[in-house]
Amino acid sequence: MDNNESIDSLWRTIQDETERRVKAEPVLASFFHTTVLEHTSFSSAVADLIANDLGSSSVQPMMLRSVIKDAINSSDEILEGTMTDLLAAKEKDPSCKYLSEPLLFFKGFKSLQSHRVASWLWDNSRHTLAHYFQSRTSEVYGVDIHPAAKLGRGIMIDHGTGVVIGETSVVENNVSIFQGVTLGGTGKETGDRHPKVREGVLLSASSTVLGNVEIGRNAKIAAGSVVLENVREGATVAGVPAKEVRQDVSNVPADNIDHLIE
Amino acid sequence: MDNNESIDSLWRTIQDETERRVKAEPVLASFFHTTVLEHTSFSSAVADLIANDLGSSSVQPMMLRSVIKDAINSSDEILEGTMTDLLAAKEKDPSCKYLSEPLLFFKGFKSLQSHRVASWLWDNSRHTLAHYFQSRTSEVYGVDIHPAAKLGRGIMIDHGTGVVIGETSVVENNVSIFQGVTLGGTGKETGDRHPKVREGVLLSASSTVLGNVEIGRNAKIAAGSVVLENVREGATVAGVPAKEVRQDVSNVPADNIDHLIE
Amino acid sequence: MDNNESIDSLWRTIQDETERRVKAEPVLASFFHTTVLEHTSFSSAVADLIANDLGSSSVQPMMLRSVIKDAINSSDEILEGTMTDLLAAKEKDPSCKYLSEPLLFFKGFKSLQSHRVASWLWDNSRHTLAHYFQSRTSEVYGVDIHPAAKLGRGIMIDHGTGVVIGETSVVENNVSIFQGVTLGGTGKETGDRHPKVREGVLLSASSTVLGNVEIGRNAKIAAGSVVLENVREGATVAGVPAKEVRQDVSNVPADNIDHLIE
Amino acid sequence: MDNNESIDSLWRTIQDETERRVKAEPVLASFFHTTVLEHTSFSSAVADLIANDLGSSSVQPMMLRSVIKDAINSSDEILEGTMTDLLAAKEKDPSCKYLSEPLLFFKGFKSLQSHRVASWLWDNSRHTLAHYFQSRTSEVYGVDIHPAAKLGRGIMIDHGTGVVIGETSVVENNVSIFQGVTLGGTGKETGDRHPKVREGVLLSASSTVLGNVEIGRNAKIAAGSVVLENVREGATVAGVPAKEVRQDVSNVPADNIDHLIE
Amino acid sequence: MDNNESIDSLWRTIQDETERRVKAEPVLASFFHTTVLEHTSFSSAVADLIANDLGSSSVQPMMLRSVIKDAINSSDEILEGTMTDLLAAKEKDPSCKYLSEPLLFFKGFKSLQSHRVASWLWDNSRHTLAHYFQSRTSEVYGVDIHPAAKLGRGIMIDHGTGVVIGETSVVENNVSIFQGVTLGGTGKETGDRHPKVREGVLLSASSTVLGNVEIGRNAKIAAGSVVLENVREGATVAGVPAKEVRQDVSNVPADNIDHLIE
Amino acid sequence: MDNNESIDSLWRTIQDETERRVKAEPVLASFFHTTVLEHTSFSSAVADLIANDLGSSSVQPMMLRSVIKDAINSSDEILEGTMTDLLAAKEKDPSCKYLSEPLLFFKGFKSLQSHRVASWLWDNSRHTLAHYFQSRTSEVYGVDIHPAAKLGRGIMIDHGTGVVIGETSVVENNVSIFQGVTLGGTGKETGDRHPKVREGVLLSASSTVLGNVEIGRNAKIAAGSVVLENVREGATVAGVPAKEVRQDVSNVPADNIDHLIE
Repeated sequence: MDNNESIDSLWRTIQDETERRVKAEPVLASFFHTTVLEHTSFSSAVADLIANDLGSSSVQPMMLRSVIKDAINSSDEILEGTMTDLLAAKEKDPSCKYLSEPLLFFKGFKSLQSHRVASWLWDNSRHTLAHYFQSRTSEVYGVDIHPAAKLGRGIMIDHGTGVVIGETSVVENNVSIFQGVTLGGTGKETGDRHPKVREGVLLSASSTVLGNVEIGRNAKIAAGSVVLENVREGATVAGVPAKEVRQDVSNVPADNIDHLIE
Repeated sequence: MDNNESIDSLWRTIQDETERRVKAEPVLASFFHTTVLEHTSFSSAVADLIANDLGSSSVQPMMLRSVIKDAINSSDEILEGTMTDLLAAKEKDPSCKYLSEPLLFFKGFKSLQSHRVASWLWDNSRHTLAHYFQSRTSEVYGVDIHPAAKLGRGIMIDHGTGVVIGETSVVENNVSIFQGVTLGGTGKETGDRHPKVREGVLLSASSTVLGNVEIGRNAKIAAGSVVLENVREGATVAGVPAKEVRQDVSNVPADNIDHLIE
Repeated sequence: MDNNESIDSLWRTIQDETERRVKAEPVLASFFHTTVLEHTSFSSAVADLIANDLGSSSVQPMMLRSVIKDAINSSDEILEGTMTDLLAAKEKDPSCKYLSEPLLFFKGFKSLQSHRVASWLWDNSRHTLAHYFQSRTSEVYGVDIHPAAKLGRGIMIDHGTGVVIGETSVVENNVSIFQGVTLGGTGKETGDRHPKVREGVLLSASSTVLGNVEIGRNAKIAAGSVVLENVREGATVAGVPAKEVRQDVSNVPADNIDHLIE
Repeated sequence: MDNNESIDSLWRTIQDETERRVKAEPVLASFFHTTVLEHTSFSSAVADLIANDLGSSSVQPMMLRSVIKDAINSSDEILEGTMTDLLAAKEKDPSCKYLSEPLLFFKGFKSLQSHRVASWLWDNSRHTLAHYFQSRTSEVYGVDIHPAAKLGRGIMIDHGTGVVIGETSVVENNVSIFQGVTLGGTGKETGDRHPKVREGVLLSASSTVLGNVEIGRNAKIAAGSVVLENVREGATVAGVPAKEVRQDVSNVPADNIDHLIE
Repeated sequence: MDNNESIDSLWRTIQDETERRVKAEPVLASFFHTTVLEHTSFSSAVADLIANDLGSSSVQPMMLRSVIKDAINSSDEILEGTMTDLLAAKEKDPSCKYLSEPLLFFKGFKSLQSHRVASWLWDNSRHTLAHYFQSRTSEVYGVDIHPAAKLGRGIMIDHGTGVVIGETSVVENNVSIFQGVTLGGTGKETGDRHPKVREGVLLSASSTVLGNVEIGRNAKIAAGSVVLENVREGATVAGVPAKEVRQDVSNVPADNIDHLIE
Repeated sequence: MDNNESIDSLWRTIQDETERRVKAEPVLASFFHTTVLEHTSFSSAVADLIANDLGSSSVQPMMLRSVIKDAINSSDEILEGTMTDLLAAKEKDPSCKYLSEPLLFFKGFKSLQSHRVASWLWDNSRHTLAHYFQSRTSEVYGVDIHPAAKLGRGIMIDHGTGVVIGETSVVENNVSIFQGVTLGGTGKETGDRHPKVREGVLLSASSTVLGNVEIGRNAKIAAGSVVLENVREGATVAGVPAKEVRQDVSNVPADNIDHLIE
């Protein structure tokens, strides 16, 4: 099954789920129609979702929608990222029971999709519009991701409030990020100064990673930790400043979401 | 004096205070009228407050108001919870000088009342609408409380930004919660996996409690702490991970709001 | 060059930058015009910016604009504060490349300007309207500053989400504050109970300072730290609770923004 | 079949029609839900319809809705009037094919329902609020009916733009009124000074009736006529000033809608 | 008593009337505050009234307000015109019982004030902005007055819907104009081609005056008439095309508002 | 020069004119950008114009825009109609000096373009959505055109308020229609019952044409006339009911706009 098929199949699932919700909760009928049912494609639903939330009294949602459409149509990357994020949220968050939930309700998920568009704008030298997306995403969802940051696929940002991801950060595929996490720079130099987070990493709530450090594959950053140095593959680190408390290279913390330190 | 009398008397106080404010600050006259003065009952004011803030371009405030009214009218529980939260905010927050302030200005207080409605919806198997309330409360106030979480009365959420309270959490009466607090789960299992917080507990700013642990009566969780184990009644815990630094069963930290560790 | 000249020159720079952006990004033309180009003075642009963001369905932006104008016209203090904050953001944030960026995009910067107006209202005994500004700033930008708090000039609040600054706090000139920082009180007494932060201090992400303690000149509070005691001039403190890890009186952490602990 | 049954049956027809439209035209799904489908009763749909259209930046639709509900609940008169107007529009307007059309699309019909509420307010000595309804109805629909005017049931106002009905006018049951019709006063005295229009009358487009004159049962006022004197039962009058051109007491012009003069 | 005193006294009356209405009708409290009570001067109330109604998604009311303020402050003419219009409406319309009613409720009155600003803009060579005022006034109130038309003082436009007044029209002081009246041009030449209406004239409902003709002092144009030639002072004309039916130089039809032809 | 070239050239003229207006009137900069400058094609500008004006709280402009785009893209007919209407307005209305004026300011012109889309919807059996366009056009512009009516090109609707055009009307190319004109049906039968208006006809202000009558080529219907019978080619008719007053087959009243009767 190729990606277009996957996206179509996922989109049908979302529409079926939403169709059933309309019957169960007519109070939200307009919401379901606007968000899902009146769209003929997944890309149209995603474009409207972001355009509506990020529009403002001086930037019409219609203008944003057209930019988002351009971004989505430019390559398959954005929508495939969106799809894998959706699957990740459904799979990793035990309170998420339907594929449609992140689309309808999760500001972490919505922030990621806004970033995917901002990132495309940045790569096409439209820095100011990219900053507009960043700025509105920070105001509306409380998630502040610099458009130059490089994020992979299948990422979950849970709850989202207070998350900050700096300009030269790299977040690889399949990373789980909780509320209050900072991937910050240090110093005033403008060069490469933010964390590189490898696949499978879990960044627990309110943890802070600062500087151009590497968080190795399958590492776990415990809640409330402050990380200022490289973290080894598979390591669990905790504390302020964070110290390694164990190492297990084969476990994937981003999947298990076990926040315990040992 | 029974509860209805209390609510009536509290409502009269709020109206009197607001009446005086109109005279002092005509710029806000419309705001005071919309929020307080044009309502004939406390329940009407509360319903409008939440409905207006949580409405969106595809869910009309009027639809929400009617749901909130149903919730409030279903039993005395919601409004009594609202009343005790109001009294708690006034009593515990030294910068809060009037009963009307939380209603007019505090997003922590408003989040709690939105949750009380969401919780009623959840208990009546209207999960999707409950999620809508949760989701909008997270976007508008920065406070993310799962509708299945069980919260008592007389709770204060101060400032509120970044607070997250997970699905199987229990927060008993008279608990004080500050900005950036997480009551989170651990692991991916869907069972009972969030903290149980007993009466009189103080959860200081940016503290994180993870897993199905019990925070004993009158315990104090110091600012920035990360708690992964049970905390004894009356204990003060601090650090990452948190360790007990003292115990005083008779003191009620939620009332004193003394954030100091010793 | 006196201050009026400085402000005029800074305003011309902002207009020139924005003029060029219109050409490069017509999608945002309305946004640039509303925010910058249709204004004949810096004070008019600042007044509209805040009025538009903090207005609501029951408080018209026009009413707020007129209050903000009164505040700005009452003395040069507010606008000079705004100007130095703008210069600070541009100088200290390596991802900020233009003077116009904070005005257009930074919620930390906008929160500070809203506070400058709220503070003027508070000093003129218009406490309720000051609380309205505080409350809306908390809802819209996620930054909660009590209007009675005393803030100096050239302050940078970076990212902003989750910042809380209490009633009797003092923040002197040239202080840098990151997301998730709390300057909180302790205890329920209503007297002087919040931190005094001296010039040149750096408050890193998610750090918490509680009580009427003094953070000495040029001190650095490391990310995630919890400070409950005075911090010496030039000291770097870290941990929960925070301990001094070094001292360097001559360095200015607020300028260097080096979040590293040693 | 009593009136409550009629209203219930009519309401079911409207819902069925609208249900089918949702399937045929998903672009309007939110519109159909907001207007019809999410309501559990005809009265709720009518109340929201008017409240939404007549609300403004300083009068919340929710406040209006509650007033309209009071009016509708006070007696069966308003809703029965609404029902007969709906049936009249469907029966008399050959381009109206469904019972739901006037509710969804006809500003003449909506103006009448707004007037029914304004009239109730006027009779309950709430003159100012009645004027608000009149004034907003004039701005939004272009139909200006003084709240003291007495209108019967089964009235059709077709197209509506420019219709003016003065303070002491009486319009009996089953009258058809086209765009641009004036029922005006003459002189400055404040007494009874507007037309009395009896049952079955047809007032064609752009006709003007001035003064306390009687338009007899089943009369027809031709398009563009100006009537300054009584018109006999069954008479057709035409011209400026209008002259009787024929008389036929048995015909009901309001039903036939034959605008021809002979 | 000079004009400033008159305006102040009139403004106090409006405020007193409105103050009493707030008590009688709390549902409209926000409306009364926004429209009248929160303003410290008549000019501020008038400016906000028009700015709020004519703003749109791409022209902020705040920008319009500032233009209107400039117009009002440029000379006493506009506000004196406004005052005399208010007095005229109160005096001539028997259903108008309070000075505050036109300000709160009459779209004819509001159209005139919008025109007074548009006219000032036109005279200051700001033709495009003048057209914006004309265009929005036509959309919002249904009254279309070219900004170059010259209107005097003490004019009443009653009901207003459908009124059109062309580019080179002159309407002198104390003229009464009803719904559906056209003062139109004829031919395609761009020169002086619209009616000149002298003092004291009554233009009854749906009457049409075309071409550069003079409607003499105290003339009366009967309802539905079409006037294509000069009308003598004091003459009453009626019909299509209009013919003189009587003459009475001493009567002032604009004051008596007697629409009868003889 | 083919039509695509014409449209491109016309679009460039509109953009040039608007570009100059921005400089002259910065207050309207956002308006000019939203309406003209931020669009890359004439069709995009037209689509947004209508979508923004006809959207409502339950039908998002973005949904309408996408429908309008489909209509415009389906054939060249709509846009060519729009172009010829624009040229007609500029040529026939002596107070219209720029090609951009109708697009920016004329509700008659905007109503026609909304009808062109509604007509396409009707022809594609989307009757309900077509009625939505009709209904909103009537509310927002005061012009009520049934979507089944057949309108040609190069039509001018001047001022527009009160215009009504019924279901089986035909209006051929190059017809000029003024405010208050009705093309109405007669009788209740649902068949062909509205006027057929041939090329070059002038329908003056407040004239009414009723029934399936033919208004011959180059005829003139004088202001305030009521027409119930066929009108010969080149005839001028006037009065209630209208009588022929002259005939001149070679003159084109729609171009000359000479409203005089002889």
